[in-house]
Amino acid sequence: MTASPRRSVVLLSGGMDSAVAAAWTRAEGNAWLALSVDYGQGPSVELDAARRVARELGAAEHLVLALDLRAVGGSALTGTGEIPKNAPRKRDQGVRGPGQGHGEAERLSKSGTGNDIPVTYVPARNTILLALGVALAEARGANAVVIGANAVDYSGYPDCRPEFLRAFSKVAELGTKAGVEGRAPAILAPLIDLSKAEIVALGERLGVPFANTVSCYDPDPEGRACGQCESCRLRRRGFAKAGVFDPTRYARS
Amino acid sequence: MTASPRRSVVLLSGGMDSAVAAAWTRAEGNAWLALSVDYGQGPSVELDAARRVARELGAAEHLVLALDLRAVGGSALTGTGEIPKNAPRKRDQGVRGPGQGHGEAERLSKSGTGNDIPVTYVPARNTILLALGVALAEARGANAVVIGANAVDYSGYPDCRPEFLRAFSKVAELGTKAGVEGRAPAILAPLIDLSKAEIVALGERLGVPFANTVSCYDPDPEGRACGQCESCRLRRRGFAKAGVFDPTRYARS
Repeated sequence: MTASPRRSVVLLSGGMDSAVAAAWTRAEGNAWLALSVDYGQGPSVELDAARRVARELGAAEHLVLALDLRAVGGSALTGTGEIPKNAPRKRDQGVRGPGQGHGEAERLSKSGTGNDIPVTYVPARNTILLALGVALAEARGANAVVIGANAVDYSGYPDCRPEFLRAFSKVAELGTKAGVEGRAPAILAPLIDLSKAEIVALGERLGVPFANTVSCYDPDPEGRACGQCESCRLRRRGFAKAGVFDPTRYARS
Repeated sequence: MTASPRRSVVLLSGGMDSAVAAAWTRAEGNAWLALSVDYGQGPSVELDAARRVARELGAAEHLVLALDLRAVGGSALTGTGEIPKNAPRKRDQGVRGPGQGHGEAERLSKSGTGNDIPVTYVPARNTILLALGVALAEARGANAVVIGANAVDYSGYPDCRPEFLRAFSKVAELGTKAGVEGRAPAILAPLIDLSKAEIVALGERLGVPFANTVSCYDPDPEGRACGQCESCRLRRRGFAKAGVFDPTRYARS
């Protein structure tokens, strides 16, 4: 189980950010393994997107782990919370995939607790995803876990903050055999300081198959984006500001 | 989702240590929720034990989350590594459950990497389990996650060390909405400084149903312990040293 010097696990959700993070990893010259989580909500537009992105960007492996976080609940996105009326359309969205770092999440409303964390926050999601990523990195001898977290356009999620990612790096160092051996997987968030427009520009430069990524919280059964939710609007603005053609299929526009 | 001042999530594996940790939690006057992980290896003596312990010690809820870590691999216990010849009997044991904190793990052999981490180490296991525990704590408004980790008799597991648990506490503070609100679940390891004999004595005092706990890595289909593996020997010595009757059903003794 020797660490390859240039092998990374990328948390891949099917969203735009994690796809750009994967392309960044590849551009750095690293072989990469994709890790996605199947939250058990049945056929998933996001997982399909993740599979396409993994294939198109040449993942050496794509592991899809089943983990039904709906049983945990505690979020509007896991079907136990109430999605407020200003949400685009109301239906159980299931939990969003890993690696998007909440960056594409729509800020549906403020929570009722006096802070500005969106109700779409899923308890400890990035902690769980990074833990699984570190496990896979250790098992495969990879030396980094890459997450698409970014906090510029939306900073409401605690587990997208640099200080959280630094704290998790310490956990990866102390809680793994790899860490004891001085080769703990690094936690990398290459998009952490980028705006959505900068992410689009970077992805365009790196050949990200944007048409195969899904940002919308409420895609129709054909996978077309609603075009109206915050996540869609954020994505559209990103493409517009970056001056990049937006290949997203919108159900209405 | 207001935090109850006295509600804890206990990572419950079916082993002795996590059962004692649960009894400790109850004795502190806390309502408690049990969290176990079903690693997908089919009928599980450990999960059955966890269910009995949860019932007997009055868990308010017992959530069993399915997560197939065999797909990740990287451990003798997950069926991808090689269990060495000095192991009791060789067969796929599946991954052990949460909360035992590796404390009952048998030190089958040294790993080949020059450190003394057992081959039964499962990549990032306690990181994953604590992440799930924090998610459940946050979703249920609990203010602590209790793990049966202990490092006195066996200190080879990096993710049983106090410094790891402290680092994870920081992650729970920074990576959760609860943390932002100043009520991050505390990470509690009440057995961290106890020997196996002290754990037995504590459990005896607190009414732990030891007969319903499973320490053996290789129980027979009736759930009887082999009596010979390191984990069995450690358990037996603990009972003997503590002067407590050992109700374990052994297949051979």
